[in-house]
Amino acid sequence: MDMIKQAQEKIRWARKYMSVMKEIEERFSAEKIFQDKKIGLCLHITTETAFLARILEKSGAKVYLTAANPLSTQADIVSYLENETRIKVLGFRGMTEQDHFENLQKIIDWEPDLIMDDGAELISLAHDMNNTTIIGATEETATGYYKVLKIDDESNLRFPVIATNFSFCHDLFDNKHGTSQSVIDGIIRATNALISGKSVVVAGYGQCGSIFADKIRGMGANVIVCEVNPQKALEAALAGFRILPMKQAAAEGDIFCTFTGNINVIKKEHIDVMKDNVILCNAGHYDIEIDKRALAQMAVGMEKTRENITEYVLENGKTINLIAEGRIVNMAAAEGHPAAVMDITFALQLLSLELFTIDDGTMQTSIYEVPEYIDENIANLKLEALGIQIDELDHEQLIYLENAIVD
Amino acid sequence: MDMIKQAQEKIRWARKYMSVMKEIEERFSAEKIFQDKKIGLCLHITTETAFLARILEKSGAKVYLTAANPLSTQADIVSYLENETRIKVLGFRGMTEQDHFENLQKIIDWEPDLIMDDGAELISLAHDMNNTTIIGATEETATGYYKVLKIDDESNLRFPVIATNFSFCHDLFDNKHGTSQSVIDGIIRATNALISGKSVVVAGYGQCGSIFADKIRGMGANVIVCEVNPQKALEAALAGFRILPMKQAAAEGDIFCTFTGNINVIKKEHIDVMKDNVILCNAGHYDIEIDKRALAQMAVGMEKTRENITEYVLENGKTINLIAEGRIVNMAAAEGHPAAVMDITFALQLLSLELFTIDDGTMQTSIYEVPEYIDENIANLKLEALGIQIDELDHEQLIYLENAIVD
Amino acid sequence: MDMIKQAQEKIRWARKYMSVMKEIEERFSAEKIFQDKKIGLCLHITTETAFLARILEKSGAKVYLTAANPLSTQADIVSYLENETRIKVLGFRGMTEQDHFENLQKIIDWEPDLIMDDGAELISLAHDMNNTTIIGATEETATGYYKVLKIDDESNLRFPVIATNFSFCHDLFDNKHGTSQSVIDGIIRATNALISGKSVVVAGYGQCGSIFADKIRGMGANVIVCEVNPQKALEAALAGFRILPMKQAAAEGDIFCTFTGNINVIKKEHIDVMKDNVILCNAGHYDIEIDKRALAQMAVGMEKTRENITEYVLENGKTINLIAEGRIVNMAAAEGHPAAVMDITFALQLLSLELFTIDDGTMQTSIYEVPEYIDENIANLKLEALGIQIDELDHEQLIYLENAIVD
Amino acid sequence: MDMIKQAQEKIRWARKYMSVMKEIEERFSAEKIFQDKKIGLCLHITTETAFLARILEKSGAKVYLTAANPLSTQADIVSYLENETRIKVLGFRGMTEQDHFENLQKIIDWEPDLIMDDGAELISLAHDMNNTTIIGATEETATGYYKVLKIDDESNLRFPVIATNFSFCHDLFDNKHGTSQSVIDGIIRATNALISGKSVVVAGYGQCGSIFADKIRGMGANVIVCEVNPQKALEAALAGFRILPMKQAAAEGDIFCTFTGNINVIKKEHIDVMKDNVILCNAGHYDIEIDKRALAQMAVGMEKTRENITEYVLENGKTINLIAEGRIVNMAAAEGHPAAVMDITFALQLLSLELFTIDDGTMQTSIYEVPEYIDENIANLKLEALGIQIDELDHEQLIYLENAIVD
Repeated sequence: MDMIKQAQEKIRWARKYMSVMKEIEERFSAEKIFQDKKIGLCLHITTETAFLARILEKSGAKVYLTAANPLSTQADIVSYLENETRIKVLGFRGMTEQDHFENLQKIIDWEPDLIMDDGAELISLAHDMNNTTIIGATEETATGYYKVLKIDDESNLRFPVIATNFSFCHDLFDNKHGTSQSVIDGIIRATNALISGKSVVVAGYGQCGSIFADKIRGMGANVIVCEVNPQKALEAALAGFRILPMKQAAAEGDIFCTFTGNINVIKKEHIDVMKDNVILCNAGHYDIEIDKRALAQMAVGMEKTRENITEYVLENGKTINLIAEGRIVNMAAAEGHPAAVMDITFALQLLSLELFTIDDGTMQTSIYEVPEYIDENIANLKLEALGIQIDELDHEQLIYLENAIVD
Repeated sequence: MDMIKQAQEKIRWARKYMSVMKEIEERFSAEKIFQDKKIGLCLHITTETAFLARILEKSGAKVYLTAANPLSTQADIVSYLENETRIKVLGFRGMTEQDHFENLQKIIDWEPDLIMDDGAELISLAHDMNNTTIIGATEETATGYYKVLKIDDESNLRFPVIATNFSFCHDLFDNKHGTSQSVIDGIIRATNALISGKSVVVAGYGQCGSIFADKIRGMGANVIVCEVNPQKALEAALAGFRILPMKQAAAEGDIFCTFTGNINVIKKEHIDVMKDNVILCNAGHYDIEIDKRALAQMAVGMEKTRENITEYVLENGKTINLIAEGRIVNMAAAEGHPAAVMDITFALQLLSLELFTIDDGTMQTSIYEVPEYIDENIANLKLEALGIQIDELDHEQLIYLENAIVD
Repeated sequence: MDMIKQAQEKIRWARKYMSVMKEIEERFSAEKIFQDKKIGLCLHITTETAFLARILEKSGAKVYLTAANPLSTQADIVSYLENETRIKVLGFRGMTEQDHFENLQKIIDWEPDLIMDDGAELISLAHDMNNTTIIGATEETATGYYKVLKIDDESNLRFPVIATNFSFCHDLFDNKHGTSQSVIDGIIRATNALISGKSVVVAGYGQCGSIFADKIRGMGANVIVCEVNPQKALEAALAGFRILPMKQAAAEGDIFCTFTGNINVIKKEHIDVMKDNVILCNAGHYDIEIDKRALAQMAVGMEKTRENITEYVLENGKTINLIAEGRIVNMAAAEGHPAAVMDITFALQLLSLELFTIDDGTMQTSIYEVPEYIDENIANLKLEALGIQIDELDHEQLIYLENAIVD
Repeated sequence: MDMIKQAQEKIRWARKYMSVMKEIEERFSAEKIFQDKKIGLCLHITTETAFLARILEKSGAKVYLTAANPLSTQADIVSYLENETRIKVLGFRGMTEQDHFENLQKIIDWEPDLIMDDGAELISLAHDMNNTTIIGATEETATGYYKVLKIDDESNLRFPVIATNFSFCHDLFDNKHGTSQSVIDGIIRATNALISGKSVVVAGYGQCGSIFADKIRGMGANVIVCEVNPQKALEAALAGFRILPMKQAAAEGDIFCTFTGNINVIKKEHIDVMKDNVILCNAGHYDIEIDKRALAQMAVGMEKTRENITEYVLENGKTINLIAEGRIVNMAAAEGHPAAVMDITFALQLLSLELFTIDDGTMQTSIYEVPEYIDENIANLKLEALGIQIDELDHEQLIYLENAIVD
């Protein structure tokens, strides 16, 4: 199959499970929501992004897309966008930091009206360049959110930004269910290990780690949770999990997965006591949670044999199997988030971006979370797509609630 | 066994599972934290409350206790407190509204320094009476919290109030695990029904309902969730539950339990389609969630035979079994919260009350939530009592986190 | 409420959840299945037994009932049967061994046609007495089954016996779901302990123990399994449970429950290392699984304070809380099996007893299990009562299966 | 990496998780258990089989291996065996039925002493050829077992056969945990669907289907079970699953998976009512459970786009996505059983084969199951490998058990 056809098939497949986006596509296209708007995107150039960009185009926008991360760029998707749409695409697999920066620059120079960002690099550059055309931007990540906060602290934002990462629906689909499933998927693909009967050590019982703990227990694992926060530790304990400090857990675990966002959560003193042939992986954003340097120093041999596995043979004769060099396991060893998850992530971005097309003077040059009604709207669209009906409050109940709260 | 001895045994048993309170008892007694303070309590007069009041007394306080609700007063506990301690007790089972009001009045007239409240009635009265002696109060319930908010809105608070209901630990033990277990307990005691294989309809997938849904699924039930909030409905769906509007759920359920805080969640149109011999109960605070009036009107016969069960025979020949007249099922048909839950609830009150003994000028006449460090402290004490050790951040990790957030 | 009325209400309540029995009642009554038969019963005299006995009476039988165990006799049920039916009842609470034996003798002297037994005492006596009237018997327990086997080995059975204990449905309802739920119920009633966060040690991962482990994990417990059988231990491990020898488990558990059928599974060396205030209970038939003698010898104090709890204070200062003196916890501290479970247990007995009314010469004087078609029939009746429809094999599928197996 | 090296790496990886086999390898090699024995194997030529064959060789045997199924042959493994061992290998990917038959013939002509079979084709041929050298055979599959039974019925076996399929450990690892995990793996790889929130229809609640239902519920699915057997349906209901006839389930499901061993379990009348974009797959041995012919006839379009997916567009406009053409999904769309599962499967074969080397005259020319003590032995070896210790019966307990059963 040629690349363009392949990209089209991939988009078609993803689209099946992106029911909220399909609803939005229909309305936006009909209403030409972004007629003549210039929209600059800095996103991972993937199947789902192509679908997103096409919706913008169908809504009347001119679209300029650069890659948030060169490694995640899918070549067939680039081919498709370049050949079958009017979307301008910058970024190819293997481009340099310099290329990346020049691409960002090109988009800002193009003087976009709107920005959709993943990591706040476009937003930052727009500020550095004193761009005056932008009327609003959306930002997908937590990292990006903190960057924007800092900009606002130091030199005031020049346009409003809506950060979508903290919305209920984003958290539910992306952090909770998307991550937990794809991490399990990544572990099984990389190792073909039988989960049943394994001791799985979960470091970090936050949004992602807690649901992962739940699901992998559902697959037959005996879960041990490590935490630094007493409240989360207690929450895990009351959910029936065993809690241990990592030093003790290290000696019992068969599979270790980190969800902490912190550095060297698994380090020399832990690796020292591990059993032979344990599996280590990381589900956090950066490859810092497992101390790879220590691992390399401790190793007398190191081999990459099976795909996505590095085997470190230690002086004590034991082998430690590291998945995907400690990089985020669901991206590196599986397909990342299911399309059904990106459906929500991108729907939040789209409906947030739409807000900037309504100039009612209420938006300040500040950073916003997604308005509750949009989050609710997306939940409703998703329920509809799932064929789920829910109850509505009747008149009596509305009255009661009002009084209960006011009174 | 005579009543006093019985009360002592009950307190001794509860104390076993109140490990956080035991720690507090030890420190407060040694340090005489409340030396010569006059403390007015308006609480349910139960086993755990007796333990709480004794701790206050041992900490040097003079204690005056009245019943938050006459129905929950345990006579043996009153006997014990009156005969074996210097705590003054007002309130007996069966007292009238008038008695209740006079009791509150007596406590305010006594000019207490501190108040511990459950429902904010003492706090309200102190405001109405322009009391000037009180330096601070704690309030346990959400209802009380809203009352205090309203006072503050309308006429400004005269002393600081700490509301404990929204703390992480209170939510975890009380709303989540305490309620879910005791509701299951109540249903089984009232009916001796086999849960396995039953369709259980859960109305309201909030803090309490969601964990109840989880636990009763763990007992073998097939759970259907009813919701009015699309986000919660979606959350329930992603947790694997079936979602239906009540009208459809009504025709499928064997057991129904309401957790909504709203009125007439189960009403005539639902009862009309129910199967024969279904079981209805309510886990919400008030007996309003199931429309008892409708049930009575629809019934051609009504019998109280088994303890805590009313059987309504409908015109269509079917029988509806209502537990505890729709009153809160875990209190009415089981023993209420386990002592391990009240341990946390009361520890939060005690450590909050302690804050008023430290006059550092930072407390305003405002309403506060429990400070995070107290909540954490309680989590730590509980973990210790459970014999659970957790990790600590090392220096490198502390530095990393600081930079990650600031930078 | 007077005793007879009370008994009637209890029977009426139980009957609601005994849907298979109701179906059988209807058919047997209409067809007078046992017209003029003399049927001797040796069963626990409980609510459900009263319902069973009434069905036999309505089916035309003369019924003579004695208590399988004097302790389980419910006085109100005796009153009801004596006053409101023609069933003859022997046995009262507190009767002696001698009384018990005389009662059995009276029933055999009465020359019954059929016997329904629980423990095979009537069956044994009939053999010892060379009874010649009996054409068949049913036996409910495993213990009884082994007794009958031995009779047959030593001196040949004089009439056919159907043992119902090993049928699929009996196992599913009684051993698996009935026991697991009622044991949890018993533990909570006796202690009011919060299950969430507790380490629960399950000794014996057989039919009962495995489902109990599952359900109590579903209630938030962290479960440790102890086993002597390597295959069952492996099965538990693959289901995600932690496996430890009792000596190690003893030091970690908060609640211990035995399901082994063996002696002194928890003994001195285990009790020695237990934590303070652990809870011990037994779900096996006899009170032998926890070494009570050792416990008494180790104790410097022993108190029965809370109902169904004995507290042993050890020399090491720790307290061990034993539920119901180590007797079967679901019977002793809760209400025993739900009516929905006895529905299946007794339906199996009734449909087995019916087989003896069809004299087609195929029944030998041997011991039988319940024929598969009866077990299936009961499953079908129960599904119907639950409103559950299932698929049927179509012609093509029947043909395929036949060929697949033969060919 | 060249093919031989690649095969060696694969074997090395698999060997890590085949701890029971490693134990056997050590003992068999040391004791030269099969010194000078000629062993004919008819197995899938996979990584794990290579490890097995090497153990036989190291134990002193001459080994001749042909492929049980040409499609499953891994070319690199063939390369490795041919170049790096003295094992003779027949069979290559793409060979014809004729080739296959000739290979079987060559092995029988070679006059082996022992046979290890998967499907009983070697065993059948040996009988047809009146082979007289064979002293025993092992057979892995249920299908093979039934074939051997038929041979024995029709013309008497000429040598003893041990069928390993029904052993406790085989069932636990292979049917239950191996299949359930790898089926989930196959579904996710083929579709990248988010399991949470999906309605998953499980046809057949047997050994495989029941654990699959459990695990996929653990991953967040809402499970519907279809059954034709009332007892299994009841078992599923009591485990909390919803039971529906396929006709109703068909209209509700998002993902369908068949585990029945029967024909056309999903057929035209079901497909007619399915929702758009449902996913169908089969976990049974043969691709007969979903009526592919009906699907093709109903389709107005049919496309293979995504790997392992065929999309059928129906006249009603809906798309049905079939995984791996209805062939066994865990083999076709994932990696089949984890090595930890094959560890048990092959260990059973090896220890069974060893029995034929001990000529104590007790083995008849009959078909046997694996002796209980071997199954227990394997369980013990596996527990040891998992680092799990279990309890042992003490003297008192052994005595008690003996008396309890005899007496």
